[in-house]
Amino acid sequence: MCNSEISERGDKDAVENGVFLMPKFDRDGLIVVVVTEVTSGEVLMVGYMNEEALKRTIETGEAWYWSRSRQSFWKKGETSGQIQSVHEILTDCDQDALVLKVSVAGNGATCHVGYRSCFFRKVVKPDSGAVQLERVETEKVYDPADVYNNS
Amino acid sequence: MCNSEISERGDKDAVENGVFLMPKFDRDGLIVVVVTEVTSGEVLMVGYMNEEALKRTIETGEAWYWSRSRQSFWKKGETSGQIQSVHEILTDCDQDALVLKVSVAGNGATCHVGYRSCFFRKVVKPDSGAVQLERVETEKVYDPADVYNNS
Repeated sequence: MCNSEISERGDKDAVENGVFLMPKFDRDGLIVVVVTEVTSGEVLMVGYMNEEALKRTIETGEAWYWSRSRQSFWKKGETSGQIQSVHEILTDCDQDALVLKVSVAGNGATCHVGYRSCFFRKVVKPDSGAVQLERVETEKVYDPADVYNNS
Repeated sequence: MCNSEISERGDKDAVENGVFLMPKFDRDGLIVVVVTEVTSGEVLMVGYMNEEALKRTIETGEAWYWSRSRQSFWKKGETSGQIQSVHEILTDCDQDALVLKVSVAGNGATCHVGYRSCFFRKVVKPDSGAVQLERVETEKVYDPADVYNNS
């Protein structure tokens, strides 16, 4: 029997207190995934998995997602080398969100803009006018033009 | 002028590299929010905000969400006392996800099941059969029956 067999949704108690993985996929068949760096705990990105991407991730120990923009499977790092090795997968109480604790290969960055984390900007409140953003990561880890050479 | 004015979505470069908050709400008008504990960095929960909940959060410094199950605004902690004071709000490259770094009042827990974090279980791979879950938090912080007294 395959060792990534995912259980059908049970009742509320089974979902919240049970010992089986019963992910709740949304109406597009997706579940939201928060990716953190296993050592620092930093949030690197938010992605989405369908059931098959989740199975592949559990089976292979490397993170697979479903790309909503491209409507296709997406093994993180296939182009960039930023492969995510999965150290731990957590699920929340109602099993409609996952946390992946990963280490990142290649240049160690995650964001396609060039930063370590996709969350490289914070909100700052001006005295008036539109809410602004300020970089919390000041330096890019790499130049995306060197990696995503799609010309 | 109000200091939580949120900008209209701009072009890709403005979204990814710009200095204005231009959140991308999904077709239900929601954006996904990852909540972490400001000191430990632990992921506590995943919630959703609509534009008004985000404005209230920025204005008040306490976390407001949109409850998808109840279809109503939800100030986290209003019933449980587990109010979230917001220390920092981060946005990701394409501005369709937020990270909230918070400290939690009351009993310090976040999960309605009684644990500190909603992510209190990890995935373990059995040799055969369905994927199982194992608690990473062994002790509940509180008994939900003491807090959510809806009888």
